[in-house]
Amino acid sequence: MRMYDLIKKKRDGGVLTEDEIAYMIQGYTDGRIPDYQMSAMMMAMYYQGLNEAETLTLTMEMAHSGDLLDLSAIQGVKVDKHSTGGVGDKTSLALTPMVAACGVKVAKMSGRGLGHTGGTIDKLESFTGFHTDITTEQFLSQVNRIGIAIMGQTADLAPADKKLYALRDVTATVDQMSLIASSIMSKKLAAGADAIVLDVKTGSGAFMKKEADAAALAREMVRIGNGAGRKTTAVITDMDQPLGYAVGNALEVREAIDTLSGSGPKDFLELCLTLGSHMLLAAGKADRTEQAREKLLGVIADGSAREKLAEFVAAQGGDADMVYHPERLPEAALKESIPAENDGYIEGIVCDEAGICSLMLGGGRETKEDVIDLSVGIVFHKKKGDAVRKGEAVATLHANDKAKLAAAKERLSRAVTISAEPVAKTPLIRQVITQA
Amino acid sequence: MRMYDLIKKKRDGGVLTEDEIAYMIQGYTDGRIPDYQMSAMMMAMYYQGLNEAETLTLTMEMAHSGDLLDLSAIQGVKVDKHSTGGVGDKTSLALTPMVAACGVKVAKMSGRGLGHTGGTIDKLESFTGFHTDITTEQFLSQVNRIGIAIMGQTADLAPADKKLYALRDVTATVDQMSLIASSIMSKKLAAGADAIVLDVKTGSGAFMKKEADAAALAREMVRIGNGAGRKTTAVITDMDQPLGYAVGNALEVREAIDTLSGSGPKDFLELCLTLGSHMLLAAGKADRTEQAREKLLGVIADGSAREKLAEFVAAQGGDADMVYHPERLPEAALKESIPAENDGYIEGIVCDEAGICSLMLGGGRETKEDVIDLSVGIVFHKKKGDAVRKGEAVATLHANDKAKLAAAKERLSRAVTISAEPVAKTPLIRQVITQA
Repeated sequence: MRMYDLIKKKRDGGVLTEDEIAYMIQGYTDGRIPDYQMSAMMMAMYYQGLNEAETLTLTMEMAHSGDLLDLSAIQGVKVDKHSTGGVGDKTSLALTPMVAACGVKVAKMSGRGLGHTGGTIDKLESFTGFHTDITTEQFLSQVNRIGIAIMGQTADLAPADKKLYALRDVTATVDQMSLIASSIMSKKLAAGADAIVLDVKTGSGAFMKKEADAAALAREMVRIGNGAGRKTTAVITDMDQPLGYAVGNALEVREAIDTLSGSGPKDFLELCLTLGSHMLLAAGKADRTEQAREKLLGVIADGSAREKLAEFVAAQGGDADMVYHPERLPEAALKESIPAENDGYIEGIVCDEAGICSLMLGGGRETKEDVIDLSVGIVFHKKKGDAVRKGEAVATLHANDKAKLAAAKERLSRAVTISAEPVAKTPLIRQVITQA
Repeated sequence: MRMYDLIKKKRDGGVLTEDEIAYMIQGYTDGRIPDYQMSAMMMAMYYQGLNEAETLTLTMEMAHSGDLLDLSAIQGVKVDKHSTGGVGDKTSLALTPMVAACGVKVAKMSGRGLGHTGGTIDKLESFTGFHTDITTEQFLSQVNRIGIAIMGQTADLAPADKKLYALRDVTATVDQMSLIASSIMSKKLAAGADAIVLDVKTGSGAFMKKEADAAALAREMVRIGNGAGRKTTAVITDMDQPLGYAVGNALEVREAIDTLSGSGPKDFLELCLTLGSHMLLAAGKADRTEQAREKLLGVIADGSAREKLAEFVAAQGGDADMVYHPERLPEAALKESIPAENDGYIEGIVCDEAGICSLMLGGGRETKEDVIDLSVGIVFHKKKGDAVRKGEAVATLHANDKAKLAAAKERLSRAVTISAEPVAKTPLIRQVITQA
């Protein structure tokens, strides 16, 4: 078999066989196939696409290109959740304790990465002492004992995807639906869960700007997941404005705690209930969505979800008292509000701009070496469609540096627009896709 | 400027500016732009194509990526000829002395390369002592003195093309019309001639199987040549059967001498007259095609074309007496004919198969290290459409090795097919393109 012939076949619209895809991914992973042939193949795939079978095979080959996380030591159905990412997305912080309190097992491998805020691990480090330096044995036994554990991505999961994504990133071959889907799903499959619930964001702050594209990506991923024997559900959700009110690490932790305490933002709670109910259904902890939602509301009402978070934080060395005293979380020295310039209704909050402001304040990483300031960020006081009075605060910036605060404030004030006419609210949950 | 953005622009159907193409070619030549980005770009260009301006800019940038041959020391209009290649293509051997005898200056850089037979330099080495180890000064002064000189490709002509072609060759991005045209023309432009006559082959033995594709390629090249200020003409010619009768190095030299002596194959003479007349027109040595053809027939009739070949061979150290005594050229020890199996008409001679038989006999190179046997090859006795009697020889193989002879004979006999019904002859000259 020669890579040249595979490139030509795909270039001319042909369908690659299982053997051909296996040859290509194995050869690329171990360096026998050079980058320059792979990038030509990726561009050919960009134009010609991949059919259902090709996409599944590609994903499976990438999933098997390195270590597979073996979760068989954990009793019960293991459910993983994945979000395609957005601004203010603190879902894991609240959702994980909620479903764990309902008996679902969550064994999560997570990264830090680059972005507007830190990753889930960074956010959790707002709890003094919290760490993810645990062995795989500790990780598995903690999930069995309390239902939740999180560890850093130490294993060599799907190295083919890592190498291929880095190549696609510099050759303008990222935006291809099947390639995006296989990239995400290869890591999820390697991470070993039995069921996967996907939160696919759409809107100006999401990778998929259009709902139709988000739905197409969701269908691809559900098809792959189910094809690989993992029960997979995707929920298409809005990312046209930041999720909830808080953007920033400790600020998002606080909002997650508020939510577990029954006083969180309505949209964020709704997202947790929707994703959580599908996790419960997948794990066999509920038969119907309505029943699942009631259970989830129940563990908030009786305090057991919040307790589960405290238990989890304590198990990984963190100061669990902060779960009950969020005022002890890292707090910024400077707070400044942005007042509304006119009476009216919030027309929009430009998602990406809110993210950039968080980054400007020091809340995220531009390069791997950057150190995150966990205390800074933004708390919005309004959502799209809300009425607002002239002079009323629409958002508050939390900062530790005057110059950064001034720059972020100037930028953020342009990112929030007010209309004199009433503005329709945007529904958060758009579609649920369980079968492709 | 970032290569990523250029790839994305072309991927999405955009048109690259002159600056962008210059950045890309210069960066690729000096290694700043890696192969993996360039191959993605080539695949994007495969699908999206290049417009007229992009193609010209790409060609000019590649032509200027290394040395430019300065022919200004040669008086008069310098005309170059290029063939896209085929089986039995000994055109330069006869055509060059013909046009030089009419006063056209031919300064030729040539290579050896791989193929069914050797290149023009290999063929000329059939003359004992002939060599191309001359300095650029000797080369230029020889053209001024006798009208012809040939030297090996010593200068670093169009290195960007060399590097890019090698990349396209392994990434399935060769077959794109504008890229093929720019590759050929970049070398021609760097080689410095004022006018260029292109022989674009079509048919089963040519790179362009279909006449429409050959014509499209010809138009691209004429457009580039004229756009670069070089008067360019393309002639589309048949390569559905070998050109002339002879395939093999010394055998082709003999056929070229026959042609200069007035006893060459009709098709080959016609090709020399057609290409030659356009060379004379380009050099201002004739006003009309008819007049040019008469001049060319004149230098054959009065012996001056043959004399010019002898003068040229002598000037480069070769035994010019062999031009008048071709029986002294290298000759193979074994000769064996293939008899017709039936009465009928030659239906076809599979070009590529004839080429492979020449290679099997030792007449060409498969790798750069192979040593060519100048004496071996094939002489056909019939062309497509010719009547043939059962038992009559259709071709004679010239060999020095019995086993090779037997293998080549077996293969060649299957390459010549005979029909009971009359078969139409294929016209050799298909189109002349002077303006795109």
